[in-house]
Amino acid sequence: MGNLSPDTLILGEGDRQAGLARALYETVRDLPIISPHGHTDPAWYARNEPFPDPARLLIVPDHYIFRMLVSQGVSLDDLGVARRDGRPVETDPRAIWRRFAENWHLFRGTPTRLWLDYTFEKLFGLTEPLNAETATDAYDRIEACLSQDGFRPRALYERFNIEVISTTESALDPLDHHRAIAESGWSGRVVTTYRPDAVIDPDHEDFAAALDRLGDLTGCDTASWTGYLDAHRERRAFFRDHGATATDHGLQSARTANLSDSDAQALFDRIRSGRGDQGDADLFRAQMLTEMAKMSVEDGMVMQIHPGSVRNHHAGMFATYGRDKGFDIPASIDYVHALRPMLDAVGMEPGLSIIVFTLDETSYARELAPLAGIYPSLKLGPAWWFHDSVEGMRRFRETTTETAGFYNTVGFNDDTRAFPSIPARHDIARRVDCAFLAQLVCDHRLREDEAFELARELTVDLPRKAYKLDHSP
Amino acid sequence: MGNLSPDTLILGEGDRQAGLARALYETVRDLPIISPHGHTDPAWYARNEPFPDPARLLIVPDHYIFRMLVSQGVSLDDLGVARRDGRPVETDPRAIWRRFAENWHLFRGTPTRLWLDYTFEKLFGLTEPLNAETATDAYDRIEACLSQDGFRPRALYERFNIEVISTTESALDPLDHHRAIAESGWSGRVVTTYRPDAVIDPDHEDFAAALDRLGDLTGCDTASWTGYLDAHRERRAFFRDHGATATDHGLQSARTANLSDSDAQALFDRIRSGRGDQGDADLFRAQMLTEMAKMSVEDGMVMQIHPGSVRNHHAGMFATYGRDKGFDIPASIDYVHALRPMLDAVGMEPGLSIIVFTLDETSYARELAPLAGIYPSLKLGPAWWFHDSVEGMRRFRETTTETAGFYNTVGFNDDTRAFPSIPARHDIARRVDCAFLAQLVCDHRLREDEAFELARELTVDLPRKAYKLDHSP
Amino acid sequence: MGNLSPDTLILGEGDRQAGLARALYETVRDLPIISPHGHTDPAWYARNEPFPDPARLLIVPDHYIFRMLVSQGVSLDDLGVARRDGRPVETDPRAIWRRFAENWHLFRGTPTRLWLDYTFEKLFGLTEPLNAETATDAYDRIEACLSQDGFRPRALYERFNIEVISTTESALDPLDHHRAIAESGWSGRVVTTYRPDAVIDPDHEDFAAALDRLGDLTGCDTASWTGYLDAHRERRAFFRDHGATATDHGLQSARTANLSDSDAQALFDRIRSGRGDQGDADLFRAQMLTEMAKMSVEDGMVMQIHPGSVRNHHAGMFATYGRDKGFDIPASIDYVHALRPMLDAVGMEPGLSIIVFTLDETSYARELAPLAGIYPSLKLGPAWWFHDSVEGMRRFRETTTETAGFYNTVGFNDDTRAFPSIPARHDIARRVDCAFLAQLVCDHRLREDEAFELARELTVDLPRKAYKLDHSP
Repeated sequence: MGNLSPDTLILGEGDRQAGLARALYETVRDLPIISPHGHTDPAWYARNEPFPDPARLLIVPDHYIFRMLVSQGVSLDDLGVARRDGRPVETDPRAIWRRFAENWHLFRGTPTRLWLDYTFEKLFGLTEPLNAETATDAYDRIEACLSQDGFRPRALYERFNIEVISTTESALDPLDHHRAIAESGWSGRVVTTYRPDAVIDPDHEDFAAALDRLGDLTGCDTASWTGYLDAHRERRAFFRDHGATATDHGLQSARTANLSDSDAQALFDRIRSGRGDQGDADLFRAQMLTEMAKMSVEDGMVMQIHPGSVRNHHAGMFATYGRDKGFDIPASIDYVHALRPMLDAVGMEPGLSIIVFTLDETSYARELAPLAGIYPSLKLGPAWWFHDSVEGMRRFRETTTETAGFYNTVGFNDDTRAFPSIPARHDIARRVDCAFLAQLVCDHRLREDEAFELARELTVDLPRKAYKLDHSP
Repeated sequence: MGNLSPDTLILGEGDRQAGLARALYETVRDLPIISPHGHTDPAWYARNEPFPDPARLLIVPDHYIFRMLVSQGVSLDDLGVARRDGRPVETDPRAIWRRFAENWHLFRGTPTRLWLDYTFEKLFGLTEPLNAETATDAYDRIEACLSQDGFRPRALYERFNIEVISTTESALDPLDHHRAIAESGWSGRVVTTYRPDAVIDPDHEDFAAALDRLGDLTGCDTASWTGYLDAHRERRAFFRDHGATATDHGLQSARTANLSDSDAQALFDRIRSGRGDQGDADLFRAQMLTEMAKMSVEDGMVMQIHPGSVRNHHAGMFATYGRDKGFDIPASIDYVHALRPMLDAVGMEPGLSIIVFTLDETSYARELAPLAGIYPSLKLGPAWWFHDSVEGMRRFRETTTETAGFYNTVGFNDDTRAFPSIPARHDIARRVDCAFLAQLVCDHRLREDEAFELARELTVDLPRKAYKLDHSP
Repeated sequence: MGNLSPDTLILGEGDRQAGLARALYETVRDLPIISPHGHTDPAWYARNEPFPDPARLLIVPDHYIFRMLVSQGVSLDDLGVARRDGRPVETDPRAIWRRFAENWHLFRGTPTRLWLDYTFEKLFGLTEPLNAETATDAYDRIEACLSQDGFRPRALYERFNIEVISTTESALDPLDHHRAIAESGWSGRVVTTYRPDAVIDPDHEDFAAALDRLGDLTGCDTASWTGYLDAHRERRAFFRDHGATATDHGLQSARTANLSDSDAQALFDRIRSGRGDQGDADLFRAQMLTEMAKMSVEDGMVMQIHPGSVRNHHAGMFATYGRDKGFDIPASIDYVHALRPMLDAVGMEPGLSIIVFTLDETSYARELAPLAGIYPSLKLGPAWWFHDSVEGMRRFRETTTETAGFYNTVGFNDDTRAFPSIPARHDIARRVDCAFLAQLVCDHRLREDEAFELARELTVDLPRKAYKLDHSP
């Protein structure tokens, strides 16, 4: 009657397949965590201050959690999510925690349940199931843990056996925390990622100001197309100086374009002067994906594309609470036509590496595996966001492996800002991969020795190589 | 060599997972049937007359059956399906039955096979497999059963352990049968559902006449927008007086709109006067979904949306046999953009409950689970129509649970007018859910005690709550 | 540590389901191969010359193999794929083989791995895993085999227990090889298939010349619409004289049209005179699918439709290496609206048989199974191309059987020009079907005797019947 035991999760029980899955898992469970894409706060590692209370650490910032609670009638106010109008929301972390604990049953069958049960037991030593009765004890226990030095960010980084972790920063970020980490002498490796959405998307609310600021930061003339591109080059170099090996692009569509220089220049002029229409904005985002790919050919940065989410689906909730409050909903998305101009331009370039993600799983077998199965520049990112789950990861392997193989994939991304859950997320990904490999072996579609080799490669070798994180900085 | 045994169907055999699936199933097999959405004829319960012969009960009205037979070259004429031109079709029920029995092997691997084998054995005591040789004996046996009082509609309702069953009526239906049932003193609970498609869809052949009739019935001026809306309010109240707790909407698209009052009025005027074009008709259907949702906020009726079928795919077959003769084919459908105007308008309303169904399973993981996983008003209807099947229900759970959880789903709908098959359909849904829960437990993703709790909730608690059928009328 | 053993592949091990899968498989493993759709070269059977070296037989022409190697950075030049500009590429078959062998691990988890391990062991007696060390020995062994008479085309045809094999020829092909085979007195049955894409697709580079040639061949006036249609009739009859029972159509879209005679004539005139625009070209392809269906009603030829691939995705690779070099990528595709005009016109014709394939698996449960589950003329082709794989075939059965049943499917197609792999491909399809049937039986959704009957039907009876190959020519 306790938590879900992390010992047997997913790997099954007595039969041959389960036994092999466990044997495979035993060889990878203690390998270091490579976290090449995520959203933890670099200030944590720079300042190494204690984490705040359990609610502010585990509940308030976790969109998986407040989504489910909202869907069952809990208000964001009552979960302590800040309002843009500054009106008061719940500030008592114990009240927030209690609301969460009372509704813990809602998460049955979800990955959040697996991540948190794992974290409760392995990190905080909580073995009683969470519910209204046990909420206070659990809170007290976690609070007590967080006050100890062993639960500060750097200590957790080490306890979690993290080899390297990537954060994600806006193109305009000064990267002070990364510099501070580097200068601190601490042995942890925290690298940044170049995420230029705000200076690429004309529909972003701060676009014009962001381009001015980009000019100030780089000394480039961001009123001109060539100056604007040079400014990107400058910032990419600056990010590389702070450990970055990759860029990240999170636009709604995967559309790319490859305009002539003069057309691109004219388009930029319309956009920059505010004369561009919606078609121009779409085209500009499309063109900039290709420009980023071309710069990746120049400077060797790995390019990540995360498209397919319709952001801020409910206007009222966006007005009240702002971005990233659970109202981002995937839509059907095309890759085969969308990526063609970019791939036509640079898809066969030997040094280029583009990692593509999807929220539309139908594209895996139909488009993405065939594309990654021929273009040397293209790799498949792991199951992402709503699909970072047992069934989601299983479907990812089942629908990509036969066409793209294992070696056009790049291992796991935790993609999270929920720092305590990172070991759970990587652990579950390792289990799902081991279970999939065991099934192939028991189906006699793979030899046992190959499965052991692959288990290790999927866990550490492929992410190190795909994200160019295999050598120390 | 007999029928498929209902004892072990789907639940597997000796291993732990199968054992647990059976144990779960044992706890729900005898729970009452909640049937909150279906198409049985209320006249059956009102008049309580014997059902006609086996062919007219089981074959002629069952689109699952005649579809498959037609696909293999049997003509609808030979199955006794009436023609619009009145030309003769097969009238001998024994001939119809024999054609069906000779082709029974065609249904291997389909849910129809499971439903009928279950019904043959459990209801009619037939244990020999159906084929050309056994056809006559089976017919005789079923015919003999149907002549007994214990096989009349009310007796079957009671034998099936139905707690409540919903029928579906047009907005213009006088609901005489429901009134008769209520006045009869019989303890069965048969509620209606408000289905206003014919008075909402300008492309419906009877639209103009239907609006006139709607005005006559309600005393509202259905020549005006406000009068038309008031007429809906009147009819909804009338339906509630006859037990209805829900409305149902079966348009091809899920498109919604939220026009200003004046734009809606102008649109209605164009439609009502026959000056509307196809774009107007589309927009009107879209607007009316939002109007229905707004009325549900007012009156508390649960709203069901069943979109995605291209009706009457073959013009010649439609001309000859009319609607609902198997030529309704699902198409790809968008929900994320389509539902946005309605959800923007009322999606966060506390009292509102909208149950969405799909025939495009790709929307489950991509759009519907994320939408239901954040909007408090939105719930996921069960696997529907072509997907009311073992694999379809399994895929439903596998692709929705991790994002929407179990508690944003609403249990099972049998959606049928094939009354004798209702126990089989609910039974199979219970088995699939128990097998899914057992798999989660054996994967250590759910505790055993939680699985037992969920088995019951999925079977009776969630449908009662979602359809507001938990209290006696 | 050897190859994957063909003995246990896919069928599992000790439990009841695996035992039954094996028992089913035992009854079909030695049944003859019906290969009703493929791309082997009829010259092989006509001339019966030894196959060339291992690389030219197994590597250079196999798009599954060079796709994967290219995706990991191997160049087509280095694999011996000819360039259009005539510049030199690798000609040493041992060098090509070595590159392949060194990269053999890339194919882990893919069907290519299964096909080749099976072929290596069963055909060439190779039991050591292929890698850089064993490459030379394997090459030597295969080369030695190929020099023996027992490895010539006709001997392999017989050893493979092929009952009939279809090749695919352009509408303009003189079919000399088929005539030579027929006149040779050899007992093998090699039939052609009418593939008129080049004389139907106005965007084909040789379209105008092809129509002139079509006129020359048939004596019909291909400058006129009626003459052009007659020319098709002539060629179809000519193909039937050389064994053809089927036509094949591989356009990007599944769009069909059913224009009036005068509109069709006017469209043809615009196309033929070069005045047609892109819309005309689309419409012409659509119209021609319906014309081909109408001719099938006349002459009884089975019609195959293979749509959904965006050809030559990378312009540079197309310019350098030409068609069919791995850059064909599936896209999302609609069938329900696209096929409607054709099905409206002839879909209920008793004698007509149209076999539809898809590269977009989402269409199986949503559109194709419902369409095949009602239209008597429509059948579902097996999992195709990227989905001719264990998971792909499993998904095919899981997503089509419940709505279309087994009897609206047509057995397996190997669709290959890789002759030595034909037994492996059919063997794997048989295994997957047996495993699926065993699962249904263990789920108690099918009786054991039915499963044995179905195993045989799926293997030989359905393809013979669907392709009208059940009688000797």
